[in-house]
Amino acid sequence: MKVAVVGATGVAGQQFLTALENHPWFELKRLAASERSAGKKYKDAITDASSGATRWFCGVPCPKAFLDIVVEDAAKLVIDDIDIVFTAIESDAAKEVEPLYAKKCPVISTASAFRYENDVPVFLPGVNGDHAALIELQRKNRGFKGFITPGPNCTTVGLAISLKPLYDAFGIGSVIMTSMQAVSGAGRSPGVLSFDITDNVIPYIPKEEEKVQKETQKILGAIKGGQIEPAPFGVSCTCTRVNVLDGHLETVFVSLKKKATLAEVKEVWKNGYKEILGLGLPSAPPELIHYTEEPFRPQPRLDRDLYDGMATVIGRLREDHVLPNGVKYVLLSHNTKMGAAKGAILTAEYLIKRGVIS
Amino acid sequence: MKVAVVGATGVAGQQFLTALENHPWFELKRLAASERSAGKKYKDAITDASSGATRWFCGVPCPKAFLDIVVEDAAKLVIDDIDIVFTAIESDAAKEVEPLYAKKCPVISTASAFRYENDVPVFLPGVNGDHAALIELQRKNRGFKGFITPGPNCTTVGLAISLKPLYDAFGIGSVIMTSMQAVSGAGRSPGVLSFDITDNVIPYIPKEEEKVQKETQKILGAIKGGQIEPAPFGVSCTCTRVNVLDGHLETVFVSLKKKATLAEVKEVWKNGYKEILGLGLPSAPPELIHYTEEPFRPQPRLDRDLYDGMATVIGRLREDHVLPNGVKYVLLSHNTKMGAAKGAILTAEYLIKRGVIS
Amino acid sequence: MKVAVVGATGVAGQQFLTALENHPWFELKRLAASERSAGKKYKDAITDASSGATRWFCGVPCPKAFLDIVVEDAAKLVIDDIDIVFTAIESDAAKEVEPLYAKKCPVISTASAFRYENDVPVFLPGVNGDHAALIELQRKNRGFKGFITPGPNCTTVGLAISLKPLYDAFGIGSVIMTSMQAVSGAGRSPGVLSFDITDNVIPYIPKEEEKVQKETQKILGAIKGGQIEPAPFGVSCTCTRVNVLDGHLETVFVSLKKKATLAEVKEVWKNGYKEILGLGLPSAPPELIHYTEEPFRPQPRLDRDLYDGMATVIGRLREDHVLPNGVKYVLLSHNTKMGAAKGAILTAEYLIKRGVIS
Amino acid sequence: MKVAVVGATGVAGQQFLTALENHPWFELKRLAASERSAGKKYKDAITDASSGATRWFCGVPCPKAFLDIVVEDAAKLVIDDIDIVFTAIESDAAKEVEPLYAKKCPVISTASAFRYENDVPVFLPGVNGDHAALIELQRKNRGFKGFITPGPNCTTVGLAISLKPLYDAFGIGSVIMTSMQAVSGAGRSPGVLSFDITDNVIPYIPKEEEKVQKETQKILGAIKGGQIEPAPFGVSCTCTRVNVLDGHLETVFVSLKKKATLAEVKEVWKNGYKEILGLGLPSAPPELIHYTEEPFRPQPRLDRDLYDGMATVIGRLREDHVLPNGVKYVLLSHNTKMGAAKGAILTAEYLIKRGVIS
Repeated sequence: MKVAVVGATGVAGQQFLTALENHPWFELKRLAASERSAGKKYKDAITDASSGATRWFCGVPCPKAFLDIVVEDAAKLVIDDIDIVFTAIESDAAKEVEPLYAKKCPVISTASAFRYENDVPVFLPGVNGDHAALIELQRKNRGFKGFITPGPNCTTVGLAISLKPLYDAFGIGSVIMTSMQAVSGAGRSPGVLSFDITDNVIPYIPKEEEKVQKETQKILGAIKGGQIEPAPFGVSCTCTRVNVLDGHLETVFVSLKKKATLAEVKEVWKNGYKEILGLGLPSAPPELIHYTEEPFRPQPRLDRDLYDGMATVIGRLREDHVLPNGVKYVLLSHNTKMGAAKGAILTAEYLIKRGVIS
Repeated sequence: MKVAVVGATGVAGQQFLTALENHPWFELKRLAASERSAGKKYKDAITDASSGATRWFCGVPCPKAFLDIVVEDAAKLVIDDIDIVFTAIESDAAKEVEPLYAKKCPVISTASAFRYENDVPVFLPGVNGDHAALIELQRKNRGFKGFITPGPNCTTVGLAISLKPLYDAFGIGSVIMTSMQAVSGAGRSPGVLSFDITDNVIPYIPKEEEKVQKETQKILGAIKGGQIEPAPFGVSCTCTRVNVLDGHLETVFVSLKKKATLAEVKEVWKNGYKEILGLGLPSAPPELIHYTEEPFRPQPRLDRDLYDGMATVIGRLREDHVLPNGVKYVLLSHNTKMGAAKGAILTAEYLIKRGVIS
Repeated sequence: MKVAVVGATGVAGQQFLTALENHPWFELKRLAASERSAGKKYKDAITDASSGATRWFCGVPCPKAFLDIVVEDAAKLVIDDIDIVFTAIESDAAKEVEPLYAKKCPVISTASAFRYENDVPVFLPGVNGDHAALIELQRKNRGFKGFITPGPNCTTVGLAISLKPLYDAFGIGSVIMTSMQAVSGAGRSPGVLSFDITDNVIPYIPKEEEKVQKETQKILGAIKGGQIEPAPFGVSCTCTRVNVLDGHLETVFVSLKKKATLAEVKEVWKNGYKEILGLGLPSAPPELIHYTEEPFRPQPRLDRDLYDGMATVIGRLREDHVLPNGVKYVLLSHNTKMGAAKGAILTAEYLIKRGVIS
Repeated sequence: MKVAVVGATGVAGQQFLTALENHPWFELKRLAASERSAGKKYKDAITDASSGATRWFCGVPCPKAFLDIVVEDAAKLVIDDIDIVFTAIESDAAKEVEPLYAKKCPVISTASAFRYENDVPVFLPGVNGDHAALIELQRKNRGFKGFITPGPNCTTVGLAISLKPLYDAFGIGSVIMTSMQAVSGAGRSPGVLSFDITDNVIPYIPKEEEKVQKETQKILGAIKGGQIEPAPFGVSCTCTRVNVLDGHLETVFVSLKKKATLAEVKEVWKNGYKEILGLGLPSAPPELIHYTEEPFRPQPRLDRDLYDGMATVIGRLREDHVLPNGVKYVLLSHNTKMGAAKGAILTAEYLIKRGVIS
């Protein structure tokens, strides 16, 4: 399938390029960015003219095959030969251009622009494939031949993945979560200054808590009458920024509807996600959840790269005696891999296997 | 009053020295440490013989007046001329020597050795002065003329200070807390290696969670029949270590017994601690709780030194819709000031004012 | 004397405000910034409208007396009632507005705009007061009643202070220097991202090496025929950025013209700067150079705040057997105190005492 | 060939294990450590009994094949079936046990114990293979059938690799170097505390500067009359510790004997090491020196893992006008890969190819 990446010069866009190198199903045909980069070869678009420095921010080098692709203007991108558009742009820009692309083909986005619309599914692979039912509604409402589906906020991803098997097996009464989020989550414009975060924690990330609370309920919601009915449990968060490069750590306290032993909880995590793991998706990890018995884990630096950042690593499962049927644990999710571009690609693979994209 | 500091060469001991410089009530008469340092002048005891480096770890220089005091062997310390002993030693050593000192005079300790004994009060100034009632029991049980009182774990301090006014005004049903603790809390032997905490969070601190849970209930407990009856609400914690030098940050979710508005919560914090703040104690801050309306605060680096580290800085008070009558907030407490030596000195001042030490 | 601060809302401008609080000689009368802030009270100009966060970046709170001053437009600032203008603005803006101010009064600047002009002295207090001779030339050339004098680059400051006594006593053949510079030196727009500097060193700071080389020669130059003749020794640098908040550390290798023992070098450092230290200048530290015998010092975090950041702390003086008459040492200088606003204020004080400003 | 690793439980030993996994030439047969670990399976020897935590410090998991090997007591290790012993132990221990092993077989060590002995070669692969001539002398002197060869200090490695081609092509008059060394270089006992290095630089590493100066001269020395005649140029260093996990960065100023253009310098770096690179050694990188034209590189975090840490990455080559025929540059070398275990393995491979080990 032929794919385009829009927002290709930004950090999130670069992560798409990295994830698409040598992808067995996808051929990267077009790169688009803002007008400023349009017309330049990709390698020139990511080179700072005054200093000669390369503005490439992934840990691995830029795939050579993409360096000479000429970047197009996102606003004028022609996608007649494209099967899927991946977008990695700011929310305001997404609001304008994603509907243009969706007229013709599926758009899988990391932007939040359409995340809270009633006719827009927010897919988390393995969790809510049935939300594809919304696509017909979206097409009808908006006159799209394709559709738009944004991925969840990176802080929601690990939390929802950890909750889904518990919700299915035991029911959930409520969730209390504190996040310690990596600086890469803030991007680079303006990003997090060393001066602000060194020897420090910043205990507030604007809008993050509301996003996590709302998205968790939507993603775990059920399709009823062609609509999503949000999961009926409360989610309460405090989201903080810590001096970590990549990987969001979250402490989670969950009240289950039905009493479960710690062994039972581990068991449902272990057996969850059988369906998606059996599909042979190229970007899927061997396990979506990896439970570690190491007492001091998960740790962002040591565990974020497990399965190339596609695992949710959970540890420290304990009983909680404060909440009814309470359990508590710590989870780690790679915010710029499973939580962004590579997660979006996994979604695309999943939707193809299910026949939603063809 | 004449005071001694035991464990004077360690980090916590050094903080006692700093806090005792120019103290209006206390005259530092004796310094004690392990046998290895005994007989040396203090300045030599904190000098590394091989490199000539000074092993002094406070941000301000060592008080000059103390440099020439000859360090004594803690195990053989004679305290006939001493009114209060401050100890800053490991728990095992405390178990042995603190009873020796307590035979003759009050011992105020940062060690946890006796913290969970039934006849030992754990004072938090302004919170539980009435626990002094235990001292008679302790004397009777142990044949002391003095007594032992350890301070709380540094992670308990800010939490208990924030909870006490809420408990008095509204009652507390339960508490869920996640801490992000500074590396200074781990001391220097072995302490936290840069290699382990850079670009990382360590989500487990052995025994810390149990301490906080137990101590919070004890400190907020009521005296009944000459004993402490622990506060009857549950406390559930996840304690983590972050790459911060000083200052423990905690996210707190509290279920109140009685519904309170955010304004009412701020009001009780503002008006709490009137008694202790009116006593004219030299180490007391102008406020025990400082509430900040700044949306991104409290932050460890920016707020830990407020009132020389004696304030609990609270911010981000919000309603919590998951817990019954829930409120949530973020607090910061300086773990090596109010949470250790200087807190112990404030306790001493308080006990003097109340006539418990005379 | 009545002073104005231009660029008052930026980080460097804020440091001027901090340094001018309770200054015995200077009364802050006017604050100016870009058009965007003009007309607002200072407290509003530093408040982020969307989040309500205060954008104040100094370690101590903003002086209360200045919060209600209405900020003026730097381009239209009327300075008829002002005796000295301190500017803390970008070089491009400085090029435009500093000459406007200089028509009427002295302008002391942290910008580099005029630093390399032949008729512009770059004062480093205690080092080159005789460069005041250039002011007449500048006035003649440019038709100023006042004058412009920029301070040196923050990386030059400590180096030149350490070299001056050596140069006077022994002569200097050449200097090789490697700097490890703090992130605060890069300001906040865009500043240094945590993502770029955590677990890292950035071995290049554009234009920095050229500045240090040129400025050191200019500052230590001699007045000959009304002009500065640059000091005739070579300076070769590699400037790097490290993950430190404040304080530039520099390793220095100096070839002296005349052989000197280490004791002689320490002696000239100790006895240097007698003149300026005897003038009773309010911002002058007790020593301009503090030599430490501690083997592991100077260290940025432990030593940068000595004398409120106005000392150059030197340590590790050793013989160097590679350079002729070589000595090597390590120095530390606070880049945003002595290296910026507070250094500029010390310059102002010095020029007043010498009658250059009256 | 069958190899043993002594000091297998320490950090450096673990790096040997990682580097020996799937090695095409070497089969790991024996693991030894201190008496405390002897008799335990390796997996148990690296597990903390009280907490259950695994004390494994490499970025990749411990090779599974080694987990069940029973650790032996280093002092009693029988090596009759072993062809090469790799040791990663403290200098004091090395002094005792390495001669025992060397009686029977070659010992390649990361310890400094024998580094400065006249009959002991310090191999740096590709630089000084001819120093093998010393082995006969060593055998005669000490009655060994095998021999001892320690690798250089990790800070020497990159410097000597960068200098060797310059020395051969142009001659060297003198070298001035400042290092910014990673915390992993200090190991874990006691290692570098986060409390000491966060927001800081420590400008002194005991004995490091002397080692680098002496070793560089020895490694680049010539064999004359069966002895090494140290290279006749001076090396002057200041070695510092920065808050970086892995990778030593060095700023280097070199005076060449013969004038060379920057292009010529790059050329000799590019063409150097042809011999060793042509040998097909399994651990050799494609280039020993990688020169980067990126203006802000090399950076420790971004460049240390090039060729799995076996490259010396050089950048920022400039003319230096202070030293005669001066050039200056910045280099980066991975201190625990090429600078320790993996470098030792490359040495072993090289000595096998040359027939020194057979």
